[in-house]
Amino acid sequence: MTRLPERLLLGPGPSNVSPEVLAAMAQPLVGHLDPSFLAVLDEVQANLRLLFGTANAMTLPLSATGSAGMEACLVNLLEPGDRVLVGVAGVFGGRMCDVAARAGAEVSRVDVEPGRILEPGPMAEAIARSRPKVVAFVHAETSTGVLQPVEEIAAAARDAGAFVVLDCVTSLAGLPLAIDDWGIDAVYSGTQKCLACPPGLSPVSFSARAVDAVRARKRPVQSWYLDITLLSGYFGGERKYHHTAPISAVLGLAEALRRVLAEGMEARAARHREAAASLVAALEPLGFSPLVDEPHRLPPLTSLLVPASVRERPGGEAGLRRALLERHGIEVGGGLAALAGRIWRIGLMGENARKENVERLLGALEQEL
Amino acid sequence: MTRLPERLLLGPGPSNVSPEVLAAMAQPLVGHLDPSFLAVLDEVQANLRLLFGTANAMTLPLSATGSAGMEACLVNLLEPGDRVLVGVAGVFGGRMCDVAARAGAEVSRVDVEPGRILEPGPMAEAIARSRPKVVAFVHAETSTGVLQPVEEIAAAARDAGAFVVLDCVTSLAGLPLAIDDWGIDAVYSGTQKCLACPPGLSPVSFSARAVDAVRARKRPVQSWYLDITLLSGYFGGERKYHHTAPISAVLGLAEALRRVLAEGMEARAARHREAAASLVAALEPLGFSPLVDEPHRLPPLTSLLVPASVRERPGGEAGLRRALLERHGIEVGGGLAALAGRIWRIGLMGENARKENVERLLGALEQEL
Repeated sequence: MTRLPERLLLGPGPSNVSPEVLAAMAQPLVGHLDPSFLAVLDEVQANLRLLFGTANAMTLPLSATGSAGMEACLVNLLEPGDRVLVGVAGVFGGRMCDVAARAGAEVSRVDVEPGRILEPGPMAEAIARSRPKVVAFVHAETSTGVLQPVEEIAAAARDAGAFVVLDCVTSLAGLPLAIDDWGIDAVYSGTQKCLACPPGLSPVSFSARAVDAVRARKRPVQSWYLDITLLSGYFGGERKYHHTAPISAVLGLAEALRRVLAEGMEARAARHREAAASLVAALEPLGFSPLVDEPHRLPPLTSLLVPASVRERPGGEAGLRRALLERHGIEVGGGLAALAGRIWRIGLMGENARKENVERLLGALEQEL
Repeated sequence: MTRLPERLLLGPGPSNVSPEVLAAMAQPLVGHLDPSFLAVLDEVQANLRLLFGTANAMTLPLSATGSAGMEACLVNLLEPGDRVLVGVAGVFGGRMCDVAARAGAEVSRVDVEPGRILEPGPMAEAIARSRPKVVAFVHAETSTGVLQPVEEIAAAARDAGAFVVLDCVTSLAGLPLAIDDWGIDAVYSGTQKCLACPPGLSPVSFSARAVDAVRARKRPVQSWYLDITLLSGYFGGERKYHHTAPISAVLGLAEALRRVLAEGMEARAARHREAAASLVAALEPLGFSPLVDEPHRLPPLTSLLVPASVRERPGGEAGLRRALLERHGIEVGGGLAALAGRIWRIGLMGENARKENVERLLGALEQEL
């Protein structure tokens, strides 16, 4: 067996996984239709409903990563020629446009500068103008560390009769969600961020009216694997074979969800907020400054502008990240797209949202700088 | 942590996983761009090439289950209006037709009765008649236990200028494959059968001419998640972020591949053949008879017609399977679709392809009957 080095994973995900979750995944296998496994799956679906804040029957761990969850939400709701409006505040909003266009949708977009929020006023105007079938945006933009104002945008979309698709990849289990109260029709997340599981599953949830709309489509969903009307055969009450669920990954997720609920979502969210505040306080004296204004910062993921002194070192900011990894075993993330070379993305997610990790990072940085 | 019951998994998959593979999966996580993980990924891709029998650069573990592998092969090669010919000898051939139709392809099919092979003559005639862009069929049909004659059908397809898509879900690591010699352009498998890993990944491989054809498409691949031109950014030499790979599952697959290669594919195939032969010899005296003629049987998965004496018991064949599971911890599979209630599907795959497991099943059956 390859022995991998120990890492403190403070990038944009994956985050570190508890020994309890790893042990749950490493149990001897049972079948995907075994009553003992189906009982675990029942529990996972119920606990995901609690964390999403929903009564949606169609709440399940999709058998692929978060990007497939994005695709599932969009391709179920969109048919060729349907109009979709996407709020683009970073890479993942941009990815939504690409996914929707591949499904044959007419895509319009509201772009804001990376690091800024989608302002509800302009979003509402764009919705009124384009009358889309679907409005899609990212709750917690992992490429910038911005927390978007969900409620006002979702209300404007619902008022205009649109379905609302929300990306909660970096918010689920890091902050309280209330997708039913917010009026969200389709939501997706990933397991490798605040849930502190390995990557490989995408928790998703669809409202009853979204499921009805998918059942009433003129043509079948383009993807057999992601078609929620087929997935409901296995993830609904009937437990009928569709594909073979990733049993070990679901066992790990079950254990992770128990840990989240044992801690309590409010306490967990407070822990994430406190860790993020201590990170900013620790790194500002070194010249790192937050990209995002304080009220819109996403506690699980902080984006920091890299100071000129670091960018101008031999090897630049990437060289410093490499030194952190190789000499201190600490992973932090660089910027994506237009922010490459300009920001660091530091995740304090799930098990890692603790001040001790900030202190370890600070100590390593002080040695290197 | 939920403690699951111990199971001997003799159904159509998943099969039991070795403690070594479970331990590899349970290692503390590293990042998906960590050099230590990328080295493991290099090894996995190289070892998959060995098992598929290919030099294809685009050979990789797709981040979803085998059914998504099927979809990846078809949606990359097919554009709306393209013609595809599918050889349908069971449920998974039927699924190929559904997946291809959802991609907008014109689907024609050659159907044979479940349990029979796709005869090369009629397949070649159908290819000559419909001049398809793609010919697709299943090497090892998991719903019937038939091993299809790949080489002659693939040769007829290549002679007609078609791309060949092959399902090797239940053959990879159970019998020697030589997809380059056979002229296969796109192949997919799963990890939970003869590779003896948990479900969750789909090993796939695309020929250089298939990749060229995808790059030359008129419109983008309908699926962002499965688009091999995007996947090549991460799974090719550049190792650029596309989605977050399922790290733990890949670590398990790496260990499983090492075990396969340490045993040697010829020895492993012989072990599967011997186990299957001992199964038929053990169960024929109880009235179970093979669905498939001897030369076309698929050693990893044997389908047996259930005797009337079992079908007519109270609870029928399903009741006997339930008793095996609940009282003896042994899972065997029932029939799918038209074969439901008529056959059992007994897998002796990967770690489980051993005569001791046949003896344990026989002992349990003798107690119950």
